[in-house]
Amino acid sequence: MSISRYAVIGTGALGGFYGAKLQKAGLDVHFLLNSDYEHVIQHGLVVESKDGDFTLPQVNGYNDVASMPYCDVILVALKTTQNHLLSQMLPQVIKNDGVVLVLQNGLGIEEEIAQIVGNDRVMGGLCFLCSNKVGAGHIHHLDYGEIILGEYAANYHPVGTTDRMRQIANDFESAGIPVKLSEDLLLGRWQKLVWNIPYNGLSVILNATTTELMANIHSRNLVEKLMYEVIAGAKSSGRIISDRFVQQMLDYTDNMKPYRTSMKIDYDEHRPLEVEAIFGNPLKKALTAGVTLPLISCLYHQLKFLDARNREFHNISH
Amino acid sequence: MSISRYAVIGTGALGGFYGAKLQKAGLDVHFLLNSDYEHVIQHGLVVESKDGDFTLPQVNGYNDVASMPYCDVILVALKTTQNHLLSQMLPQVIKNDGVVLVLQNGLGIEEEIAQIVGNDRVMGGLCFLCSNKVGAGHIHHLDYGEIILGEYAANYHPVGTTDRMRQIANDFESAGIPVKLSEDLLLGRWQKLVWNIPYNGLSVILNATTTELMANIHSRNLVEKLMYEVIAGAKSSGRIISDRFVQQMLDYTDNMKPYRTSMKIDYDEHRPLEVEAIFGNPLKKALTAGVTLPLISCLYHQLKFLDARNREFHNISH
Repeated sequence: MSISRYAVIGTGALGGFYGAKLQKAGLDVHFLLNSDYEHVIQHGLVVESKDGDFTLPQVNGYNDVASMPYCDVILVALKTTQNHLLSQMLPQVIKNDGVVLVLQNGLGIEEEIAQIVGNDRVMGGLCFLCSNKVGAGHIHHLDYGEIILGEYAANYHPVGTTDRMRQIANDFESAGIPVKLSEDLLLGRWQKLVWNIPYNGLSVILNATTTELMANIHSRNLVEKLMYEVIAGAKSSGRIISDRFVQQMLDYTDNMKPYRTSMKIDYDEHRPLEVEAIFGNPLKKALTAGVTLPLISCLYHQLKFLDARNREFHNISH
Repeated sequence: MSISRYAVIGTGALGGFYGAKLQKAGLDVHFLLNSDYEHVIQHGLVVESKDGDFTLPQVNGYNDVASMPYCDVILVALKTTQNHLLSQMLPQVIKNDGVVLVLQNGLGIEEEIAQIVGNDRVMGGLCFLCSNKVGAGHIHHLDYGEIILGEYAANYHPVGTTDRMRQIANDFESAGIPVKLSEDLLLGRWQKLVWNIPYNGLSVILNATTTELMANIHSRNLVEKLMYEVIAGAKSSGRIISDRFVQQMLDYTDNMKPYRTSMKIDYDEHRPLEVEAIFGNPLKKALTAGVTLPLISCLYHQLKFLDARNREFHNISH
């Protein structure tokens, strides 16, 4: 197979990091940029990483998806709050036998994207990455980086592993990015929510780091109850997550350094929060199966309020 | 009947206001003071009120309950967070045929006090009062003032109206304080929680006025859901509150000026929050009847976290 051509839709902390790693490994990568376009065209991308810093003085940068070549693999790395743009973008950049790889957080995004490109041209990737964009075309990779890849099929029916997954996994691993293959993307999505829902939500609502949330018996108790609600949500989708997984996530978080979640960073920067992808979609999916998740719904409403006020305030003060 | 002798346990925004009004009307009132003791002994009490300002240059003030005379009516006007003091205090100040009138917020306090003074010596009063203490012995009465009086009996069994209720109501009304008599104290307590639980809780958690909470569709929706949970809690105590009451409370709040709740004021002043009385006790009471109230439980845990951190921070910074 010839070298795959990659498109990166959204060259930020996540898309910029993975795309730069792939280009550095010799792959053919094309970056869609927005506010950083001029800067990146002139200066390229800079990655400071715990695995070694590097610079790409020249990259294929675009400020309009219409100028991009058709690609084999489209990495969707926008914030989900921008996903309304995808129905226009994706058809202009995906090859007939190409695939969209959703690297976003939350639930149900692959399903939305399948409406645009078809059920057989979507995959999901769960990213365990800690990185920030610290300036135009300048990414700071702090820790982790693994991706769990899973195929999408209609209604998230599990379809096992495929050749194209293995090819993409090879590309990423050649770039030093660890990849695991999942046989059940929806299970993986729900598992990731077991962590994301309590910590992202409460870190914003209570203005707290993970360490603070774990140190107080009441917030810790609420974290745990929320995790069990996510498990109930997964069950409503026919996905079984064992109670042991809750204890694993609590232990894992106990052993982390004080961590500011990605949603908290977005909040502090007055950026839109991914409330619908991470909270709204799981609530809707469970409700479709007749299951209510009251604690998650409480956080959902609180976050919607805080998100609206946070941006309103930002607009006034800038 | 001779003039009743009143004790005010806790001469703050509420106890100071009602006690001063009673003394001004000619009743024999004895005030327990704490930090304001020296000031009030020398300068008395000052009440600025929308119904007319007045000063009481001399009041019967005490800094120790042991020095107080036995009284007919003991107004309990401490914050509930101080109620652990009452088992020592009340026996030293209540006449054999006296009664403790609980003017505090929340649920189940009368039951706790009945453990100290007996089931037949407790009453509850629901205060609809907007006042602040603005300085030592200096109270600012902003609005409202009505009290709904109800007799307590074992297990909150409703016992209708009694002579002593009517006597106390007469005293208060002679002092210009409107009083209504309730035949079912527990019903009244749950009704008051329909307002107090959503607005006190969310005002602290979301740092918002009542007006802000009503203006956003998500917080408004959460307020409404919380009100229905309080109704479910009331039902678990055998008290029926109609759904219409929710709409009345929403309309009532829509028509209020932007209001900072009492719990928000406590929070902003780094004072302990009455989380147990207003949230913890209703949760426990419902749970005893086998009913869970998940949204209220979510707020409970969040408030316990915020309360602990709020006071910790206060202790460090002062």
